[in-house]
Amino acid sequence: MDIFFLGTGAGMPAKLRNVTSIALKLLEERGAIWLFDAGEATQHQILHTSIKPRRIEKIFITHLHGDHIYGLPGLLSSRSFQGGDTEVTVYGPKGIKEFLQVSLSISQTYLKYPLTVAEIDEGVIFEDEQFLVEAKILDHGITSFGYRVVEKDRPGTLLADKLMEAGVQPGPIFRKIKNGETVTLEDGRVIEPEEFLGPAQKGRIVTILGDTRFCENAVSLAKDADLLIHEATFSKGEEKLASDYFHSTTHQAAEIAKKAGCKQLCLTHISSRYDRAAWLELAAEAQEILENTEIAEDFKEITIPYR
Amino acid sequence: MDIFFLGTGAGMPAKLRNVTSIALKLLEERGAIWLFDAGEATQHQILHTSIKPRRIEKIFITHLHGDHIYGLPGLLSSRSFQGGDTEVTVYGPKGIKEFLQVSLSISQTYLKYPLTVAEIDEGVIFEDEQFLVEAKILDHGITSFGYRVVEKDRPGTLLADKLMEAGVQPGPIFRKIKNGETVTLEDGRVIEPEEFLGPAQKGRIVTILGDTRFCENAVSLAKDADLLIHEATFSKGEEKLASDYFHSTTHQAAEIAKKAGCKQLCLTHISSRYDRAAWLELAAEAQEILENTEIAEDFKEITIPYR
Ligand SMILES: [Zn+2]
Ligand SMILES: [Zn+2]
Repeated sequence: MDIFFLGTGAGMPAKLRNVTSIALKLLEERGAIWLFDAGEATQHQILHTSIKPRRIEKIFITHLHGDHIYGLPGLLSSRSFQGGDTEVTVYGPKGIKEFLQVSLSISQTYLKYPLTVAEIDEGVIFEDEQFLVEAKILDHGITSFGYRVVEKDRPGTLLADKLMEAGVQPGPIFRKIKNGETVTLEDGRVIEPEEFLGPAQKGRIVTILGDTRFCENAVSLAKDADLLIHEATFSKGEEKLASDYFHSTTHQAAEIAKKAGCKQLCLTHISSRYDRAAWLELAAEAQEILENTEIAEDFKEITIPYR
Repeated sequence: MDIFFLGTGAGMPAKLRNVTSIALKLLEERGAIWLFDAGEATQHQILHTSIKPRRIEKIFITHLHGDHIYGLPGLLSSRSFQGGDTEVTVYGPKGIKEFLQVSLSISQTYLKYPLTVAEIDEGVIFEDEQFLVEAKILDHGITSFGYRVVEKDRPGTLLADKLMEAGVQPGPIFRKIKNGETVTLEDGRVIEPEEFLGPAQKGRIVTILGDTRFCENAVSLAKDADLLIHEATFSKGEEKLASDYFHSTTHQAAEIAKKAGCKQLCLTHISSRYDRAAWLELAAEAQEILENTEIAEDFKEITIPYR
């Protein structure tokens, strides 16, 4: 489970930062990449990485500002060109469907894979045996979602040798014990799964927020996250400007992370007003509040360790 | 009058060639840039040039395939962000209006300059005292236009010294002579403008074609052009493939240029199947038919000399 930043700029592409796109690499977990936003030239950024477009399984759009969506039609059509044939689901605010429908049909683009576009409301928008994704609306003038990706706890590995020593033969009983069920053997013995399973693996939590002002929903989405990715379009002291433009400052992002008890914070959506030297200052501002903070950069990867 | 290639690839962005966009620099002539097509990341390419988006006056779209239009919404909105406040006119096939309207409105993009979108038919689509632009439909499955840009002849510079020696004082008469009118002075003398004007400046012709099969309209648009820009998605010998996919080969492009009597040919829309070594072979194929041929490359500039 790694975060890979494809674009970390604000508003417009600049030489050092492309517009927003963030990849959540779930290669070990499910052989898949999930994308969050797809600003223009996201597919160009991908050309310079090891990411295979055909691995992209889900794309979560935070909001419909151009710097977050204009790369979507090109990315989807190139994925088809390049032989991608598995389903892709795009989640996003109302309007994303029309944008994609018009862009793809006017250009006579026929995808060779099933595309599902889900216009979402707040709540749990996806859940399977591995992951749960929850969305809430932030405060950005336009509908802007934050996404909380929760990896489910994994039961420990089955201690097969120990079971066989206890006289249990491999078969359906093994599967039940692995799934955490209590089993009563034919001879009447009761097998408690905890005794025959290694330690359970706690799942991780990553929260990726769209552009937003400081808001309570950000705290609730980020609760106890291993990593929070939060915008910081403005620097400390510019709270008035940030509020006027429906954005956040470095300090506000760090306050959210602290209130939510996040282990790590990464600031993104960095304006091209700031040069490399200023990036360090932005990081330092946030670190006054949460030490474990860094500034995103295009092509930076953050591995999220197990708890 | 220079051509500057912003993107010269086919279908999808690749490391060495972005998708299509061609700038016609008319900086001396009218302080303006005209763009032909705007594939995704055209604005990113512009970041690495001296082109100022606010100088872009007209954008001619050849056809609506994604690799020719997906960069348009981002380019238009960044132009506004960067302070562009003069009108832009986009010309293109039916459908371009809906694409732009939906892309800009869904992303809540409000341009700070007037945008006119003209869905065109064949014929003269623009004319003023300097230039005339004619469009014709090519053969690409989808409606694909070729554009012929004709610079009007310029009358020679006024020989003011010679006029004053002849006893004519500066004033409205000077202007009439400059405009090529015959003037009768108060003393009855007749002034023929040819005697008091330097040599006239012949205008230049540049023809930029959208994707197409070999077709007659290409010849008529390219007639006597100083420079023809023609696609060459396939190499010599692949005529069957080219026809199946509604594209042209190097040989076919050169045949068009030769039939039309073009001074120079530049091949573009080069597939990423071809590496740098193959580019030389593609050029050589076309040069068998028209010696003055070259292969476009991203960031290459071609100056079009006066006749
Ligand atoms: Zn935004
Ligand atoms: Zn095409």
